[in-house]
Amino acid sequence: MTQSTTWVTEAQGDYLELRYKVNQVLFSQQSPFQKVEIVETDFFGKILLNDDLVMLTEKDEFVYHEMLAHVPLFVHPDPKRVLIIGGGDGGTAREVLRHPTVESCTLVEIDPVVVNACRAHLPQTACSFEHPKLQLQIEDGVDFVAQTTEIFDVVLVDSTDPVGPATPLFGLDFYRNVVRCLAPNGIVVSQAESPFFFAPMQLKLLEILQACLPLVSLYNYGNMSYPGGTWSFSFASQGLHPLADFNSERTIASGLDFQYYNGAIHQAAFALPSFVRDRLLPFLTPLH
Amino acid sequence: MTQSTTWVTEAQGDYLELRYKVNQVLFSQQSPFQKVEIVETDFFGKILLNDDLVMLTEKDEFVYHEMLAHVPLFVHPDPKRVLIIGGGDGGTAREVLRHPTVESCTLVEIDPVVVNACRAHLPQTACSFEHPKLQLQIEDGVDFVAQTTEIFDVVLVDSTDPVGPATPLFGLDFYRNVVRCLAPNGIVVSQAESPFFFAPMQLKLLEILQACLPLVSLYNYGNMSYPGGTWSFSFASQGLHPLADFNSERTIASGLDFQYYNGAIHQAAFALPSFVRDRLLPFLTPLH
Repeated sequence: MTQSTTWVTEAQGDYLELRYKVNQVLFSQQSPFQKVEIVETDFFGKILLNDDLVMLTEKDEFVYHEMLAHVPLFVHPDPKRVLIIGGGDGGTAREVLRHPTVESCTLVEIDPVVVNACRAHLPQTACSFEHPKLQLQIEDGVDFVAQTTEIFDVVLVDSTDPVGPATPLFGLDFYRNVVRCLAPNGIVVSQAESPFFFAPMQLKLLEILQACLPLVSLYNYGNMSYPGGTWSFSFASQGLHPLADFNSERTIASGLDFQYYNGAIHQAAFALPSFVRDRLLPFLTPLH
Repeated sequence: MTQSTTWVTEAQGDYLELRYKVNQVLFSQQSPFQKVEIVETDFFGKILLNDDLVMLTEKDEFVYHEMLAHVPLFVHPDPKRVLIIGGGDGGTAREVLRHPTVESCTLVEIDPVVVNACRAHLPQTACSFEHPKLQLQIEDGVDFVAQTTEIFDVVLVDSTDPVGPATPLFGLDFYRNVVRCLAPNGIVVSQAESPFFFAPMQLKLLEILQACLPLVSLYNYGNMSYPGGTWSFSFASQGLHPLADFNSERTIASGLDFQYYNGAIHQAAFALPSFVRDRLLPFLTPLH
């Protein structure tokens, strides 16, 4: 543990660095998959980093986790069985488990070091691990979807960038298996990178989804702690429409409090900047 | 001129730094108001910095300038006279002057060094300075609105952060004078900071606007090169409604090409994240 003030640096390519002032390194361990670190800062609260990339900060993790979980869960009319691939910090599961229709939430995380580090140091997101409806599975998500006989209403691919252990999560074989274990009315939402910094990867992901599922779209949100700020999730389904099958009243009737999400944000998120829309047009299902 | 690779660093408070790799410093001068620099990078193109804060990058300046100009200009039914306070790089004027209804665009910039540096090194934004409808006025915007007898349909406050020369642009006296030179159907749009990093300033600006104008709202956009990514503009008017008085068809009929803006983005931008909406609620006019 380091007690003196220091900085952690996240590099975006070789052209941009984001440096965070750190009071204390709370956890640092090289797992078989990646370097896992949790540091403490004044402004951002605790920060989880994998391989020197910021995964979440306590200050703004609600944005990512609410937008990943609630958009599909308020489109699906009756989400009972939810699968999370990745998401070892627990934040996505926390939001999923706020939906009373959910009967089971299976979280498949490849790296137990992430789960243990978050359990020890990030109770804000790791609070969900003790939930009776949570099934934690320490396993490669690629193997899990290839082998499971379970069927899920909603699959959330809560992956890191396509480097290191998450690389196969941006592949066609993985998504073919995801669709194999998807209910007839199912939805798949995936972390879909930045339109500024990862445009080719975003394009590739949508191309794969289009090959696997009849409805493919993209939605954006503002991530304070990922470079460039504008980040995306893909929304793909067996047919459920992210806007036509969404009723804003249900978000209010749910009685849930949100810090970022709301009915207006849900609808707004699917409006794409012209440069994103034009680039991805061949792979997107028209929503209007 | 430096020819070797170096980095420029933008500090956000004392807790975050954004560092850009620079090939070449093209311009660097201390004006009476601020340090003005233009640097050349591989990824972002040229970057304009005032007092070590990134004002724009060639790669993404279209986002800021399109969202500042087109939102009010497509709400106002017949914008003829536009006033820009600040905006010495010319990017906002460039977008304003694409609207054929505009008969004159007055740009009041306090710092001639910014204008001259951009004219010399940033033709992408400074292209508007030769436009026959542009009136460039090198003057403090605070004095201009206090003294002018002209009347404007749309006023765009294209300011830097409320430090240095832009501080009075976040004050009540300034906005009282802006309203004095606003047409009966006028709109005022202002650079309104980040909901993550400048929440108190955003609150103060809306409070001031509410004291001066009957309709006050806020819209967000994703700025790749400002810290935190999510940034805002305030929209205040004598009565024109940013959604009810907006017709998406007009954006298409205009024949204008946009890189970020479009009708869906216009409407989506006014959807506020719950934490922003709740914080600003006392100062916002309900839009629905």
